[in-house]
Amino acid sequence: MKEKPPVPTLQDIFAARPHVYRHLKPTPLVHYPTLSALVGTDVWIKHENVQPVGAFKVRGGLNLAAHLTETERRGGLFTASTGNHGQSIAFAARAHGLAATIAVPEGANPGKVAAMRGLGAEVVFHGPDFDTAREWITGVARERGGRFVGPTEELLISGVGTYGLEIVAELPDVDTIIVPVGAGSGACGTSIAAKGINPAIEVIAAQSAQAPSMQLSWKQGRLVTAGMQTFAEGVATRVPFENTQRIMRRLLDDFVLVDDDDIAKAIVTLLEHTHHLAEGAGAIPLAAALNLRERLAGKKVVLVLSGGNLSLEQLRTVLEQHHG
Amino acid sequence: MKEKPPVPTLQDIFAARPHVYRHLKPTPLVHYPTLSALVGTDVWIKHENVQPVGAFKVRGGLNLAAHLTETERRGGLFTASTGNHGQSIAFAARAHGLAATIAVPEGANPGKVAAMRGLGAEVVFHGPDFDTAREWITGVARERGGRFVGPTEELLISGVGTYGLEIVAELPDVDTIIVPVGAGSGACGTSIAAKGINPAIEVIAAQSAQAPSMQLSWKQGRLVTAGMQTFAEGVATRVPFENTQRIMRRLLDDFVLVDDDDIAKAIVTLLEHTHHLAEGAGAIPLAAALNLRERLAGKKVVLVLSGGNLSLEQLRTVLEQHHG
Repeated sequence: MKEKPPVPTLQDIFAARPHVYRHLKPTPLVHYPTLSALVGTDVWIKHENVQPVGAFKVRGGLNLAAHLTETERRGGLFTASTGNHGQSIAFAARAHGLAATIAVPEGANPGKVAAMRGLGAEVVFHGPDFDTAREWITGVARERGGRFVGPTEELLISGVGTYGLEIVAELPDVDTIIVPVGAGSGACGTSIAAKGINPAIEVIAAQSAQAPSMQLSWKQGRLVTAGMQTFAEGVATRVPFENTQRIMRRLLDDFVLVDDDDIAKAIVTLLEHTHHLAEGAGAIPLAAALNLRERLAGKKVVLVLSGGNLSLEQLRTVLEQHHG
Repeated sequence: MKEKPPVPTLQDIFAARPHVYRHLKPTPLVHYPTLSALVGTDVWIKHENVQPVGAFKVRGGLNLAAHLTETERRGGLFTASTGNHGQSIAFAARAHGLAATIAVPEGANPGKVAAMRGLGAEVVFHGPDFDTAREWITGVARERGGRFVGPTEELLISGVGTYGLEIVAELPDVDTIIVPVGAGSGACGTSIAAKGINPAIEVIAAQSAQAPSMQLSWKQGRLVTAGMQTFAEGVATRVPFENTQRIMRRLLDDFVLVDDDDIAKAIVTLLEHTHHLAEGAGAIPLAAALNLRERLAGKKVVLVLSGGNLSLEQLRTVLEQHHG
């Protein structure tokens, strides 16, 4: 039986390029000699943290916003998020002249709320936790004829996959790409792009050991809900996502866990050696690479610094805990 | 009498573009809504901190390395620097397959020495201070038939001016650009590019009040040596440079000073609102903009974040002194 190609396809990612580059520049891929010495092999950082909203997700939001029906455009975008997904949707809505309504739980981070409002989004506080906010906003979107945007939609995966194309275009002989997993859109986009061009490129996913649901689900081949205590909010997933799991099972070479303490150390190491601020999720690939030193020896390794939205308070805590 | 155009010219900056973009991507120009609210007008950051060596100077090094004679290429590049200029020359030398020898005073920052060595440069410790190291390396370059590179050479100014072109190309209706001054190559390149295209664009230079020699020289119209106690090593100029002063006298609209304490606060504000790490020099334009709020009201303002090479130790100090 002929195997169906994963959805979305490499072609879908190429189709997303004009929608992404209408509003964004390719991000830097930088080789760091002193960081390479630490990891014991040649290491490049893919700097998705330098996107306008500080994270890779904005590529996906722009692709999604470019594919709406006229009715959806009139109704506007609706989503729930306290983080990078919400900022991505707010940015994409502004770029496309759409209204965006974002539900956040009561007590959400005021800095991120201000950032979303600064981009013109309406931010509505609703309910004690994320799931309550999401359920509520889904209903609101339906009532108002708007478009609810889930975190792992295919158009988002195709959009974020464009950074995978940038990596392979700039470093065609890359051996291994390490990418963090929250809901999985980045890992899926990276795998589809890289392996679609060269199946020999190894893609390793990484997640916090303090939020292992996506990793356990991948290892066990079934959806597993798990405890979630990581400080790295970009990967703080408790309930796994089926559609990204399906793609990852087919394409990922491995999926590893790293301790929050190692993630915090990696944030400090990145500050010292690259002078870039990483949020927890963005530092996970470096933490993983340091754990996988022997396996990576002699390889050309790209670490996806997925986002830089670390709060001042988190930065202070990390610097107090870890002296570089 | 017909006034001669400043040297280098707008044409020289355009001529530098292919040499720069053979090795670098344009850097992001990002509008930050919450930072704009703080300054009270629309503010964009030109992110030169995301260059491979963490600062704008690498553009100049690449342009210079592309214009050597065969004899100079064989002899290699020689310079003195403990900071971004040295890393720029090391990067450019590697990109062009040249040897680079960089003199640093004894006791130079080990992190920066490691970065220059990581790029393949030979780093030689010589003498107790920068001037001794520079004098010595100038002699070595002469003996070995190599090319000594001073910090304000025209080819460097033309190269760094390419970021000025990027600003005007992306934001043609920019009103004001604020740029930090160390030796002055960035301010000169920015002015030549911006005013060469649109003379109405205002260019304001800024420097630490704890290292005012370039500002005093500009104000008084003669070279003035002054005390130097700033922590912002990128602008720690004690003895002014004649050739950049000549260009700045002709082109700059204003030249302001900001206190080191305000520079440190601006580093914290940038971390909070943009999630980018700025070195002291890179934060000076924001510190200046906050002081110039009334004058900037209603204008479209670009702040040049010239570099991000703040050490971990400096970062800790700044965060301890200033609670955001």
